Amino acid sequence: MPPSLHWTAGVHHDGSALFVSNPTPALGETVTISLRVVGKTPIRGVFLRSCPDGEPWMIEMQPSLIQENTVWYKADLAVTMPVNPYRFKLITPEGAYYFTALGISRADAPDSGDFKLLADYPAPSWIKGAVFYEIFPDRFHNGDPSNDVRDGEWEVRGAKTKHRPWGEMPLHYREGRTLDFYGGDLQGITRKIDYLHDLGVNALYLTPIFSARTNHRYDIMDFFEVDPHLGGSEALIELRAGLDRVNMKLILDVTLNHTGWFHPWFQAAQASKDSSYYEFFTFNNHPNDYVSWLGHASLPKWNYRSQKLRDQLYRAEDSVLRYWLRSPFRIDGWRLDVANMQGKQGAVQLGHEIGREIRAAIKGHSPEAYLLGEHFHDGTPHLQGDELDASMNYQGFTFPVRRFLAGKDLGADWNANWADTHPLPAEFAAKQISRFMGAVPWVIAQQQFNLLGSHDTTRIMTVLDGDRALTRLAVVLLMTFPGVPCIYYGDEIGMTGGNDPFNRACMIWEPEKWDRDLYDLHRKLAALRKSAPALREGGFQVLYAEGSLLVYQRQSREQQLVVIGWRGGHNPLGARIPLWPGDIADGSVLHDLISGDSFTVKDGVINLLELSHGMGLILEVTHP
Amino acid sequence: MPPSLHWTAGVHHDGSALFVSNPTPALGETVTISLRVVGKTPIRGVFLRSCPDGEPWMIEMQPSLIQENTVWYKADLAVTMPVNPYRFKLITPEGAYYFTALGISRADAPDSGDFKLLADYPAPSWIKGAVFYEIFPDRFHNGDPSNDVRDGEWEVRGAKTKHRPWGEMPLHYREGRTLDFYGGDLQGITRKIDYLHDLGVNALYLTPIFSARTNHRYDIMDFFEVDPHLGGSEALIELRAGLDRVNMKLILDVTLNHTGWFHPWFQAAQASKDSSYYEFFTFNNHPNDYVSWLGHASLPKWNYRSQKLRDQLYRAEDSVLRYWLRSPFRIDGWRLDVANMQGKQGAVQLGHEIGREIRAAIKGHSPEAYLLGEHFHDGTPHLQGDELDASMNYQGFTFPVRRFLAGKDLGADWNANWADTHPLPAEFAAKQISRFMGAVPWVIAQQQFNLLGSHDTTRIMTVLDGDRALTRLAVVLLMTFPGVPCIYYGDEIGMTGGNDPFNRACMIWEPEKWDRDLYDLHRKLAALRKSAPALREGGFQVLYAEGSLLVYQRQSREQQLVVIGWRGGHNPLGARIPLWPGDIADGSVLHDLISGDSFTVKDGVINLLELSHGMGLILEVTHP
Repeated sequence: MPPSLHWTAGVHHDGSALFVSNPTPALGETVTISLRVVGKTPIRGVFLRSCPDGEPWMIEMQPSLIQENTVWYKADLAVTMPVNPYRFKLITPEGAYYFTALGISRADAPDSGDFKLLADYPAPSWIKGAVFYEIFPDRFHNGDPSNDVRDGEWEVRGAKTKHRPWGEMPLHYREGRTLDFYGGDLQGITRKIDYLHDLGVNALYLTPIFSARTNHRYDIMDFFEVDPHLGGSEALIELRAGLDRVNMKLILDVTLNHTGWFHPWFQAAQASKDSSYYEFFTFNNHPNDYVSWLGHASLPKWNYRSQKLRDQLYRAEDSVLRYWLRSPFRIDGWRLDVANMQGKQGAVQLGHEIGREIRAAIKGHSPEAYLLGEHFHDGTPHLQGDELDASMNYQGFTFPVRRFLAGKDLGADWNANWADTHPLPAEFAAKQISRFMGAVPWVIAQQQFNLLGSHDTTRIMTVLDGDRALTRLAVVLLMTFPGVPCIYYGDEIGMTGGNDPFNRACMIWEPEKWDRDLYDLHRKLAALRKSAPALREGGFQVLYAEGSLLVYQRQSREQQLVVIGWRGGHNPLGARIPLWPGDIADGSVLHDLISGDSFTVKDGVINLLELSHGMGLILEVTHP
Repeated sequence: MPPSLHWTAGVHHDGSALFVSNPTPALGETVTISLRVVGKTPIRGVFLRSCPDGEPWMIEMQPSLIQENTVWYKADLAVTMPVNPYRFKLITPEGAYYFTALGISRADAPDSGDFKLLADYPAPSWIKGAVFYEIFPDRFHNGDPSNDVRDGEWEVRGAKTKHRPWGEMPLHYREGRTLDFYGGDLQGITRKIDYLHDLGVNALYLTPIFSARTNHRYDIMDFFEVDPHLGGSEALIELRAGLDRVNMKLILDVTLNHTGWFHPWFQAAQASKDSSYYEFFTFNNHPNDYVSWLGHASLPKWNYRSQKLRDQLYRAEDSVLRYWLRSPFRIDGWRLDVANMQGKQGAVQLGHEIGREIRAAIKGHSPEAYLLGEHFHDGTPHLQGDELDASMNYQGFTFPVRRFLAGKDLGADWNANWADTHPLPAEFAAKQISRFMGAVPWVIAQQQFNLLGSHDTTRIMTVLDGDRALTRLAVVLLMTFPGVPCIYYGDEIGMTGGNDPFNRACMIWEPEKWDRDLYDLHRKLAALRKSAPALREGGFQVLYAEGSLLVYQRQSREQQLVVIGWRGGHNPLGARIPLWPGDIADGSVLHDLISGDSFTVKDGVINLLELSHGMGLILEVTHP
């Protein structure tokens, strides 16, 4: 083994089926937990520590299936609680090591870092095979010019709507005031279903489509009407029918944190304290001083102390969230905008309470509905099994990847003075990834919504300064990472664009303007993502992370894939990549599913001979 | 600076008054947060990240009070929520560093590791000056032989009570069956108040004193009666009066997880399903198959789905917990036995719900009452400000200290095969300490109940194999650590004793059998603990931790103390102790409050010249 790797690198467990006999057990079931140890170690004994009803319980694990150089330790775990935490304790003559989802250390750690197994958890069955595509409806395709917003059709705070020619750059906020419209609509999406299907996409996420005043439509005026400029509700029914033909899923976007001041409920509340909607908001001093999103008067914040508000938004049969889940729309889930702030208001912090209620409302309708929340910083407190199915995985994927490849975190998108602008060594990227992944149950980690960018960030090609090789590598990471990949419209053809609104340019439909290689890579990897067992439901193990080199493994019972990403720059080990921690024996042959190249393992490593800038490999392992 | 220390060692913040202008602010208040940076660093800017209502908020901190070599960065934080998380982001040309309560890293981390400031938190005012003493009443002092349990006074499962002569070793469980009694009682404690007061103790924790069958009395039969063999309720009133004379506090011990099968409520429930107490328990199959503590039939578990049970135990005016808080008993708080399991029962996990209710009941009576829970492994989920005031700090103090000094964790007490038996290097002890301290708000960390041992563990002198130097060092750590120290009766005079029941031997009252040095050290340090501002409410910073050497600082506005613990063995830096990270400039003089020796700082270090095994120093800093 290369001297830079400690024996603990060969110790692995994750929540996948290779290590947990049933990753989605019923309450009362007993599952077998496995720990794999590769290489020569001083281990004398391994114990599984569970914690039924809050009391630690140590079970000695039995070594079994002993192969040359590899030992599997196994023990049974009784699934007795909704959330079942467990960890490992390794006894060695050097002392004991504690192994939790946060890593292995001689220091003991709080239970929050334990591996967690959920009981009776209804995971949407389609998620593990999903490849999402995010669309900003005004900018994807104009299917019906007759419904376009016209110049000066309405006015907001002195600014007027502008109809803009397709393909021209969005106007800076100072000029456009989010009132520049390009005419994209749902009919346009329906017409492009074949394009999406051919690309390999099988699930759509649309930013808001309800009636609103701005081009982003987060200032929703009517929750029960698709904006007529997007084709109205009829166009959504048509889109649904079109998606059904190719079995493509659809999730919509809604803000449950605030509404727009044009919303009639707010208008009524502002008009009179006697309005039955008055309690939906928090007026410090009626009518003009009220709680709003980050102080923006145009976005008054919902007041969840109102039980009636909860009924109307999600609890009642005819509530907003349940209305669109039903026929004829039958959407497959919701993306909750600003989920991080929802229900949180100073002294009154109802975030978890309404999070649980929203889940109950949605899952009561259908356990198959996907409940996704926007969390730019940390969604993990809401990802413990009783609230969200997933969050937009900015902190657990997007930012560590962008920081690793480009040295840019979120703030870099608008040159914030607090932005990180120096490439993050792979060991810290891996640490950040494992901290956020380790904070949630595995079944949730597998559902996390991974993205390289969105309507809220600079496009990945621009983040990477147009470096096509690094962009390809970013796509390799996106498509092979645990969780669900989402392509932001146009990223697949190499569109560029800085921070909002320049990341929301019109989709380019002239193939001659595309980056064909990038498109082909997306198409190839989308297909792989949907079919490869190791990517659909395999575990995740970082095999090596240092400096410019990140190596991880995805492994299921059927398949073992090694992903290598090298961003360029110095690598202490040169082109020799240590693979032994992944239980990959000497003589194994690794076949790159992208280039077709093959490598053979010797002395625990493969030698790539030379590393090229932005190199990304997806190697399938064939054991000797 | 010694080459082994990275510049990040000089970055510090904790929740104490030196760094938070008001550590116990009211909701709506604005406090000033400070970060101290010592030494040459590449820092270009520092940002305070708060998270009001779930949305990250970056505030540039202003460098101020710039001394030679030290910069204080300051920014205001609005206290808008019950729990206010914050962290720091340091911008450098190497990239950004994130500094949370878990440490400093280039990798970002989930919010759970943030520093946390509580609003409107009623911290018991007496806790910061408390020195506790734990008494196992049957074994401390026999004040009234007339109430002693007699031989054969009752029988439990075929075993009979035994009256044992004071000073003989407790009988092994197989022989004694926890029915061997020595006659200690409350009158005995009252008679020894002068002893305790003279030692410096000002708060008592008594293990259960209610009527029960066993010598440990955790099998409570009547919550409203002090065991007549301990002198009955009259003796408690007398004890209270005696304690009042020297302003000594008193907390009692109760199990809210289960009761004893002799308890009349359980007897009634078992006798008939029609009993009004039937719902207090969970019968799988009445009458003999019921849920009990770890399957011990003698300890049936409370069923908190019963609202009536909650009323009787803590909610009602005349409930158990409130009864003893009132006159004439006026106890100053409760220690909740097995708090880790309380209300947790398979599919029904009510731990947090009843934790919050218990707090409301107790604090509704008096915010000054101290609410302490037993948590052997991890109490931090219940230590966020809305449940317990503190837990018995086994994981955040006892075990890291015992593992550091002796290489023994809890399991070593009974030779468990999963026990760690190798000394823990100081860097991991410090890591474990900071993980558990960082998981709770500072105001809670300051209230944590620190102990070297208890009636549930091997005595510290025995853990350390009779090594008197290491035992003295352990006492130095106990008395200088953030939180409240508790001396287990007899530890102050060097009593030995293995795991239960040998750790529960009779207190030795013959001074000639005492370890006088150890007693004097306790007395000296108890006085220091109560009077030294840095120990009462100072912050906590690990200055250096490696191998056999642990160095930390306690600092308040008035005083700066450096604690050095060296367990013996190799130290990479020899006798040169780096102090610069603690803002201790060259020329500062450090005066050891134990030995009287003085040292002067040069080149950022002090040179102790030679290290002796088990050396413990408490150095007061005088700046040049």
